[in-house]
Amino acid sequence: MAVYTDINEVDLKAFLAQYEAGELLSYKGIAEGVENSNFLLHTSKFPLILTLYEKRVEKSDLPFFLGLMHHLSERGLNCPLPLPRKDGELLGELSGRPAALISFLEGMWLRKPEAQHCREVGAALAKMHIAGEGFELTRPNALSLEGWQVLWAKSEARADEVEEGLEAEIGAELDFLSIHWPKDLPAGVIHADLFPDNVFFLGDTLSGLIDFYFACNDLLVYDLSICLNSWCFEKDGAYNITKGKAMIEGYQSVRPLSAAEIEALPILCRGSALRFFLTRLYDWLTTPAGALVVKKDPLEYLKKLRFHRAVTNASEYGLIA
Amino acid sequence: MAVYTDINEVDLKAFLAQYEAGELLSYKGIAEGVENSNFLLHTSKFPLILTLYEKRVEKSDLPFFLGLMHHLSERGLNCPLPLPRKDGELLGELSGRPAALISFLEGMWLRKPEAQHCREVGAALAKMHIAGEGFELTRPNALSLEGWQVLWAKSEARADEVEEGLEAEIGAELDFLSIHWPKDLPAGVIHADLFPDNVFFLGDTLSGLIDFYFACNDLLVYDLSICLNSWCFEKDGAYNITKGKAMIEGYQSVRPLSAAEIEALPILCRGSALRFFLTRLYDWLTTPAGALVVKKDPLEYLKKLRFHRAVTNASEYGLIA
Repeated sequence: MAVYTDINEVDLKAFLAQYEAGELLSYKGIAEGVENSNFLLHTSKFPLILTLYEKRVEKSDLPFFLGLMHHLSERGLNCPLPLPRKDGELLGELSGRPAALISFLEGMWLRKPEAQHCREVGAALAKMHIAGEGFELTRPNALSLEGWQVLWAKSEARADEVEEGLEAEIGAELDFLSIHWPKDLPAGVIHADLFPDNVFFLGDTLSGLIDFYFACNDLLVYDLSICLNSWCFEKDGAYNITKGKAMIEGYQSVRPLSAAEIEALPILCRGSALRFFLTRLYDWLTTPAGALVVKKDPLEYLKKLRFHRAVTNASEYGLIA
Repeated sequence: MAVYTDINEVDLKAFLAQYEAGELLSYKGIAEGVENSNFLLHTSKFPLILTLYEKRVEKSDLPFFLGLMHHLSERGLNCPLPLPRKDGELLGELSGRPAALISFLEGMWLRKPEAQHCREVGAALAKMHIAGEGFELTRPNALSLEGWQVLWAKSEARADEVEEGLEAEIGAELDFLSIHWPKDLPAGVIHADLFPDNVFFLGDTLSGLIDFYFACNDLLVYDLSICLNSWCFEKDGAYNITKGKAMIEGYQSVRPLSAAEIEALPILCRGSALRFFLTRLYDWLTTPAGALVVKKDPLEYLKKLRFHRAVTNASEYGLIA
């Protein structure tokens, strides 16, 4: 649940006067996103999301995120579109925070996605990769090999509190990935966090992708590996190959994978499982008990990591050559 | 911030099928109310509030609350209107909780209300008192003299932790109020919690009253004393007589007070200040550090209580005879 900053209607009206947004009718803090404060606004023109960027987001990254949403929307991707101010700027300020007004996407995220939805997500991800071409700004992936080392250095000493032997296991995994991580695959703008709560559906039709606040430049197929991790495992930890097959087929229906990308898929899945394991482990060890944010279990991603370590080639994910 | 229960779209769609509510387009958990889980729904017909009643609300009280909103709406008061199911029931069930769909009121609550707004609130409160006539259900006020004794018994022993001498001071106050509390004043349905966050405005015009989950039967002028406490003091603790005068004039423009009601106003203000002091004191002493709910300072209402104790007649609130 995320409303870290309250706003008053006087400041909000002054903020809205900088936009062609109509008359303000109501605003409600909404329980969405964990990094920022979000409000759903009704105006005489249309519903809007107002986002106040809190400290965990680097202000210098905001032009990348907002510019990317604008770029992708212009190329026909269904994603939130930042509303420009009358002076053309996408970013404003409210209650001492950087703030933006963004179009409201109707749709719901699926608590229980099925294979047909995974297919749509795969296709939408590939469309996003293609739509991202030509975007002039870049942002390195802060949560790739180097970032993992930094996170690990902060958690390593206490890792065995979570499970005995973890310090050795993860240390070895990081060494392996450093050596074998692929470099010469197609790269571009990736979403980097396309979990089920960031994909909206109306009925069974995908209606949009949201939350681009981890987007960055990296290997495109790495983004697919994140989706396999976040969409295609069941609650009991089992990989669902039917979902995986649908996800990969959906992706390839829009953007076929090269032989090198297919070959790299297992190691990329190991990397993305490790990435979410490491951020969850860090939060697990550092978030005080009783804090506002729900702690996510790092062991879920440890199990996934171990599954991928045993995969010898991409056919085990459902990929048919 | 209040979303205690998450809901999935499958259960929600089955729930909505019991109503004539249109097609579901989106739902967002909103940070509003502290007792229940609230969601803002967009459907193809209209926006709605979905409330899931959590444990702190007695299920047996729900027909009173929902029936009252229906009764008041029918009599022209701007307040949320429960949408009946196709079978006529106002109350349903979702995710194992009693649940209701309620019309969405546009408007915003004022973080910095002024005297003109207090005048409107006074008038709206009196309109609510008149509109409440003829409502056939009743609910005793659980937070009057008897309830205060129960709360106090749970906090008394630790009261001096908050301020030295508090145990003696509040004990004496309760004794005084038990002896002098008025009995023969006009009674009816009162809101009992009409704080600024429960009154919506569009511009400077009052657009509606919300949150009837403390409503009950009690002395009508006691409700006015709650509003004087919650609207007419400044942040520094000073009583703002301009606001008080406007509030009382607004009330009397719709429902003039009797001489007996006017005479009782100071003691009723003491009682309502004590009521909010006691619930806040109890929460202060029992809510664990770092819990989801923001703890409100009980001393704010102790200061108000002491102010009222020094008041000799209602003219000190701005009432002109």
